[in-house]
Amino acid sequence: MVDAPEIAVSRWFNTNEPLTLSALRGRPVLLHAFQMLCPGCVGHGTPQTQRAFELFKQSDLQVIGLHTVFEHHEAMTPVSLEAFIHEYRLSFPIGVDEAGEGTPIPVTMQRYGMQGTPTSILIGRDGSVVHHGFGQQSDMALGAIIAAELAGHR
Amino acid sequence: MVDAPEIAVSRWFNTNEPLTLSALRGRPVLLHAFQMLCPGCVGHGTPQTQRAFELFKQSDLQVIGLHTVFEHHEAMTPVSLEAFIHEYRLSFPIGVDEAGEGTPIPVTMQRYGMQGTPTSILIGRDGSVVHHGFGQQSDMALGAIIAAELAGHR
Amino acid sequence: MVDAPEIAVSRWFNTNEPLTLSALRGRPVLLHAFQMLCPGCVGHGTPQTQRAFELFKQSDLQVIGLHTVFEHHEAMTPVSLEAFIHEYRLSFPIGVDEAGEGTPIPVTMQRYGMQGTPTSILIGRDGSVVHHGFGQQSDMALGAIIAAELAGHR
Amino acid sequence: MVDAPEIAVSRWFNTNEPLTLSALRGRPVLLHAFQMLCPGCVGHGTPQTQRAFELFKQSDLQVIGLHTVFEHHEAMTPVSLEAFIHEYRLSFPIGVDEAGEGTPIPVTMQRYGMQGTPTSILIGRDGSVVHHGFGQQSDMALGAIIAAELAGHR
Repeated sequence: MVDAPEIAVSRWFNTNEPLTLSALRGRPVLLHAFQMLCPGCVGHGTPQTQRAFELFKQSDLQVIGLHTVFEHHEAMTPVSLEAFIHEYRLSFPIGVDEAGEGTPIPVTMQRYGMQGTPTSILIGRDGSVVHHGFGQQSDMALGAIIAAELAGHR
Repeated sequence: MVDAPEIAVSRWFNTNEPLTLSALRGRPVLLHAFQMLCPGCVGHGTPQTQRAFELFKQSDLQVIGLHTVFEHHEAMTPVSLEAFIHEYRLSFPIGVDEAGEGTPIPVTMQRYGMQGTPTSILIGRDGSVVHHGFGQQSDMALGAIIAAELAGHR
Repeated sequence: MVDAPEIAVSRWFNTNEPLTLSALRGRPVLLHAFQMLCPGCVGHGTPQTQRAFELFKQSDLQVIGLHTVFEHHEAMTPVSLEAFIHEYRLSFPIGVDEAGEGTPIPVTMQRYGMQGTPTSILIGRDGSVVHHGFGQQSDMALGAIIAAELAGHR
Repeated sequence: MVDAPEIAVSRWFNTNEPLTLSALRGRPVLLHAFQMLCPGCVGHGTPQTQRAFELFKQSDLQVIGLHTVFEHHEAMTPVSLEAFIHEYRLSFPIGVDEAGEGTPIPVTMQRYGMQGTPTSILIGRDGSVVHHGFGQQSDMALGAIIAAELAGHR
């Protein structure tokens, strides 16, 4: 079992305080990595994350969006992201993944070895990566994985 | 906490042996009540149940379909149901709810006080009704409810 | 250019008088062949036909549904079809294709050489087959084909 | 009958030469006004326009996309639009509506009195506005309107 790497965020939306995995230890975390111009994110992964945010509102699940821009950097600046979040009525906390040095891949994306977007990662109460899913996942499977972790069961 | 009433089935499809809740005690049971000519069942509830059957195949969840005909009885006979099951590639066990005496409402439907179709009911390991949902439910919520019960957690 | 064969119908729904192509000569006819237990019909072709019926209501297009049962005959009787039409709120005229002799394929289906269901056929004002489409067709293409015929243009 | 106002475009994508309605006189033109961060455009209107572009490729219909940014101007620059066009595989010509002076509403949007995005306008062979549709329109209706104009019939 490997500990989930810490996230590196240069700017936050939808939260007054920065979030860190270390401070969230003990709570499950759904980490949704997306790009605002990725059709598979906009059409499926990101609204799915919003649904999870709403469904599990009464639980202690923490949902975090992560804008992991690895291409078209000039096209997906925080200014554009802010309008995207507003227009798509996203209400969960969203962080901008810290730019990588000498690479187009941002820092958190590298740390997790993500293959692309959308990627949804579930981090358990114990801080380990419980699930790492790249691409389209079914709502039913995601709901089940989160509920099992909330129940303290894998 | 009330015990889930036993099901009353006059004919089975997709199973060699009749199923009873009493024999299934100790395992969670997803009971999906539908009618083959109910648009909300055909378009949403019944394929959702098939997805649940496939997603939780490795668990000890038992999925049971129940054809609870309460209108157009002549139109939805077992002969028609059999073709429906074949054409829609449904592979979970499906029972025909026993005809009611002096009422169009079949026996199991009465026992559970179902309001219509589709209805999806989750029965817990302890034999109690954990969830009773009439109408359209989201895949994510259903996946979560089942997973929580499988984890022994409510 | 071949004349569209006459339809052979043993029973009508949603019309007080039997319809014949010969009597409709001069008007375009959209002929939608379906089976009530064919998933591709129920999920796509038949609601699409209902949409066409509503969209072109002000025109002289005649929409005709044809229940071309070629399998599971006992499962898709007129009694079942009547409930299907009611439950799915279909309001265009629907005829039951006449049973074939010594073959499971009904008469009109044979005459048109249909390969299966759903099939949508457009018959022009001059009585010829303008379009013969088997399987799923896009709404945009169907709307365009009908409109072109209504405009007297191919 | 009123002539369709000329379009004012500050930058083109997917075309080597600027397009003008005056040069297109004699051909029908489908003008699709959108914003890259408008959910109703991204989810419905813009892919619908792409489908129309493909369906009517053999005809003399000219499809033109118009990026009519009237809010979040900093978020939807041509740099962002270019990545959007690439990621969403849009292949029809797209122009950036010229910025308005002293108003957030761009020039062409003003000239046509558009109420918002998405808006789809069909301009006839004679240069008049045949159809002006704001919001979601059905594929079937749009296909029919275009085909009727192509047939020289209203």
